[in-house]
Amino acid sequence: MIYLAKIKYDGTAFHGFQVQPEKRTVQGELCAALSETLGTHVSVTGSSRTDGGVHALGFVARIDAPGASVPPEKLPLAAARFLPSDISITEASECQEDFHPRYDAVSKTYLYRIENEKVRDPFEVARSWFLPRIISHGGIDNMKKAAERILGRHDFSAFMSEGSSVTSTERTVTELTVERRGGVIEVRITADGFLYNMVRIIVGTLAEVGFGRFKPDDVRKIIESRDRKNAGPTAPPEGLYLLKVNY
Amino acid sequence: MIYLAKIKYDGTAFHGFQVQPEKRTVQGELCAALSETLGTHVSVTGSSRTDGGVHALGFVARIDAPGASVPPEKLPLAAARFLPSDISITEASECQEDFHPRYDAVSKTYLYRIENEKVRDPFEVARSWFLPRIISHGGIDNMKKAAERILGRHDFSAFMSEGSSVTSTERTVTELTVERRGGVIEVRITADGFLYNMVRIIVGTLAEVGFGRFKPDDVRKIIESRDRKNAGPTAPPEGLYLLKVNY
Repeated sequence: MIYLAKIKYDGTAFHGFQVQPEKRTVQGELCAALSETLGTHVSVTGSSRTDGGVHALGFVARIDAPGASVPPEKLPLAAARFLPSDISITEASECQEDFHPRYDAVSKTYLYRIENEKVRDPFEVARSWFLPRIISHGGIDNMKKAAERILGRHDFSAFMSEGSSVTSTERTVTELTVERRGGVIEVRITADGFLYNMVRIIVGTLAEVGFGRFKPDDVRKIIESRDRKNAGPTAPPEGLYLLKVNY
Repeated sequence: MIYLAKIKYDGTAFHGFQVQPEKRTVQGELCAALSETLGTHVSVTGSSRTDGGVHALGFVARIDAPGASVPPEKLPLAAARFLPSDISITEASECQEDFHPRYDAVSKTYLYRIENEKVRDPFEVARSWFLPRIISHGGIDNMKKAAERILGRHDFSAFMSEGSSVTSTERTVTELTVERRGGVIEVRITADGFLYNMVRIIVGTLAEVGFGRFKPDDVRKIIESRDRKNAGPTAPPEGLYLLKVNY
């Protein structure tokens, strides 16, 4: 049986998704728990390689489990007995043999949460980026304007950390919204693909716009420069959530 | 200076509010951090003695800090530098000399969160009571009916754990609501005072009503019996939040 599973995890205690020797990873825990659940050695292929501390609400994984007979709709509950409390499978269905959760993705949507309050909410620790300097109404409006400048197809080299090799640095951002909800600023971004740390550098740059260090129009110049040094800081991983993968 | 502070804490890593030798407690951490903040030895008097794992959104504490000169409105930010990340002071004002945060409370409001989903949400771990058997619409309605039976002044001995000495076991419950919000059932309760574990035993009993093991009218009989053995189980501490203290 091949399963397609939707997965939720709190990334705090993981060294990211991908298996690494002697580190606790989501893929490693999934493999171990699902091999127990299904009574066969399984292989797990993920839709993304999230970094340590990054969370997921709608991660997609393909689970190859030769000989397994658990019906897909029973998998979430069956696996819950073996999974650690920081991972859960929320849905599962049967997967087509030629389906690849990463290569077949048309786009992905991320949510980034900034806690923008003077004093940290204890319940937000490890779940958002804490920025204690308050971004004004005007600052939020400027972040929205800057977000509009980022929409569309661009060479996003200025928003890429080193350490990954890609053939093209062009990506198409189809959605980028900024909303304040109480003490939390939510940034939502959809693109056909993301360069390494692209969401986190975009968020770090939008925060600089919010604080007035960049003007909304500066963002266009930063993109055109293709130089990482011109963009804002890389926002920390704990504010980032993989929201959904679109096929 | 005497301060009156509103305090929020994630109770997961504390052995409750009250100082105990060699245990990490909210009162102990507050004392240490505020003595640093204010440069003088402080004493902290709390509105309640929450148990280990219990959270607070609107805990009230009186802080006696002889000689301290930090203005009350600056205390939340000043203390944030010294407090651990699981406690924060959200508001502070000057406190009257004869004010006692526990004895002067007219009533207190608690929130209890039950995660009622088949599969645990990783982001709910340590923040709610996980009940994987789904309570139906009818079950929720019965919980609401049972809640109405609990309202008013009663001898709540049946809803009290041993281990505390009280002169009277009569209390007046003025608010008790049950609402499902998505996967979480929220129980909100206000009373002029609470016996030991009273909220958690009421919630455990309401859950039994939700599952159909008790009928709504049984709750009246349980109260009248004054016998702890007739009520439901004590719901675990991690779902309980002290919401506010009313003066």
